[in-house]
Amino acid sequence: MLLLSKKDIQRVFTMGDAVETDKQAFHIYSGGGSVVPLRINLGAPGYEGQTLFMPGYIEELDSMGVKIVSVFPHNIQKGIPTVPATMVLIDGTSGEVCCLLDGTYLTQLRTGAAAGAATDLLARRDARIGALIGTGGQAMTQLEAMLTVRDLREVRIYSTNSERTRSFVTQMQTEFENFGTLLRPVESSEEAVRDADIITAVTTSRQPVFDGRLVKAGAHINGVGSYMPDMQELDEFIIRRADKIFFDSQEAVLAESGDFIIPLASGTISSDKFSGEIGKVVSNNLPGRETPEEITLFKTVGMAVLDIATAYRIYQRALKEQIGQSFSF
Amino acid sequence: MLLLSKKDIQRVFTMGDAVETDKQAFHIYSGGGSVVPLRINLGAPGYEGQTLFMPGYIEELDSMGVKIVSVFPHNIQKGIPTVPATMVLIDGTSGEVCCLLDGTYLTQLRTGAAAGAATDLLARRDARIGALIGTGGQAMTQLEAMLTVRDLREVRIYSTNSERTRSFVTQMQTEFENFGTLLRPVESSEEAVRDADIITAVTTSRQPVFDGRLVKAGAHINGVGSYMPDMQELDEFIIRRADKIFFDSQEAVLAESGDFIIPLASGTISSDKFSGEIGKVVSNNLPGRETPEEITLFKTVGMAVLDIATAYRIYQRALKEQIGQSFSF
Repeated sequence: MLLLSKKDIQRVFTMGDAVETDKQAFHIYSGGGSVVPLRINLGAPGYEGQTLFMPGYIEELDSMGVKIVSVFPHNIQKGIPTVPATMVLIDGTSGEVCCLLDGTYLTQLRTGAAAGAATDLLARRDARIGALIGTGGQAMTQLEAMLTVRDLREVRIYSTNSERTRSFVTQMQTEFENFGTLLRPVESSEEAVRDADIITAVTTSRQPVFDGRLVKAGAHINGVGSYMPDMQELDEFIIRRADKIFFDSQEAVLAESGDFIIPLASGTISSDKFSGEIGKVVSNNLPGRETPEEITLFKTVGMAVLDIATAYRIYQRALKEQIGQSFSF
Repeated sequence: MLLLSKKDIQRVFTMGDAVETDKQAFHIYSGGGSVVPLRINLGAPGYEGQTLFMPGYIEELDSMGVKIVSVFPHNIQKGIPTVPATMVLIDGTSGEVCCLLDGTYLTQLRTGAAAGAATDLLARRDARIGALIGTGGQAMTQLEAMLTVRDLREVRIYSTNSERTRSFVTQMQTEFENFGTLLRPVESSEEAVRDADIITAVTTSRQPVFDGRLVKAGAHINGVGSYMPDMQELDEFIIRRADKIFFDSQEAVLAESGDFIIPLASGTISSDKFSGEIGKVVSNNLPGRETPEEITLFKTVGMAVLDIATAYRIYQRALKEQIGQSFSF
């Protein structure tokens, strides 16, 4: 069994690798090449905590896995992560647990790469201005993915806490210096999205975080944050203005994300314009962007298939490069 | 995170510890102190393999866990275990994965201890002769448990392959020399069970492995092997002769074990004599043996609660004695 920390993963696997892996995973999922049982949820009522077990199987990669993700809000008082996660990868040819990976970083990586893959497939090639709304735990890899798939001149970064925004941007300027892109904190979401070619929202907001009427023609939008029915970061305007709307899993998005559940329930949007799953764009079964003026939108809530495919590729690379700690029972 | 191999476990945890832990786990289970969702089964059709995920939660131990057990029959051609297993223990106060244990040995240990606990609770104190039927992967810990809970003069050991029986006995004589008990291979199950005070059957047989009419008054029987509806190692005679019949989980046994499903379906036994769950004997809510002449019978199919409780106790002990390999993501 191989044990892979965040540092190990970073040594063998780039955001570019993750983007290509997510494209493949979307393709596998939409083609029916995966088995994903309902996740299991165990509660620890005394700690207001819950632990999710998310298993899955990808036949063509001969890989199974289960991601164990807990949400224990009171961990913050103990100074430990409130959302600890561990990925357990299983060799689908033998049934043996073959690799354990830092599930927190894996989630950040594959979630950034999911929006990155959609951006690469749907955004204009000549996109130059990005906007990132949200500076929480998933924001860094969202920024990295955006910088990886397009050659941007500038990314405007906004969150409701301007101090936090500035501190995040300072950190990112060091982290992503090599991209040569201007990273700029801004004071309003209006300032962030106006003229932006690519907009990624990654918040847990209960209210829309930008005005969809301000988005320019030809833009591409990623909705990453809303994963519960009462979370809504995209407004009805951007959903109505979007010419094409893609999902990682349409079934999951319509079951889980308030971005769509809320306006569908109130009748302010209809499902007519939903194009389908991004995996079908990868396989050329659906057209992506067809004109420079189209607004494209991608909504993701995350899938076990992304975890398993990404963990598998990292594991293969780590084996080859002899990275990580081995353990044998 | 702590990683515990079989050797690590053996250094900190005895069969006696495991027996006491299983008693507590039975008690917790029967008292409603655990949450055990349905296990998830993923198939790998290309390899005729399947992987089971068995999660559970014990509130009073602040512990969650998931045992991952695979059955890949073709592994034998690769020289690797056909039933690899890994136990993942989760700290129920923080949701963090805190320990990984050798699931194969954990299963052997807790399964031996389950029959050991029932034997300790139900067999006559003056039991002197044991019988073990079956010499497969679970047999060694079954023998160890029997030797641990009663001071036996002799254990007779039988399996359908007499060469394998002799080789198993030779190995066990070395392994368990310190108990000072005569371990004796026998040529028939009749020879094994006649006059035996304690009988443990641990086979995957489709037909009963001993004649229940030969069992003496006052004996205690453990049925360990049958965990599928088409497996039957106990005959209708011993079930009809038993004065008291206990289960680890009555619901699970009646759903899974041919020992009971087959004779109940044909009407050769009735459920009148089922006493209930062994956990209620632990808590004194049900009487155990009441006379020296009673025949008592215990049937187990295994439960996630045993895995979690046992893993938790081992982990606590290993932490205290600083045994095992630490890993941090």
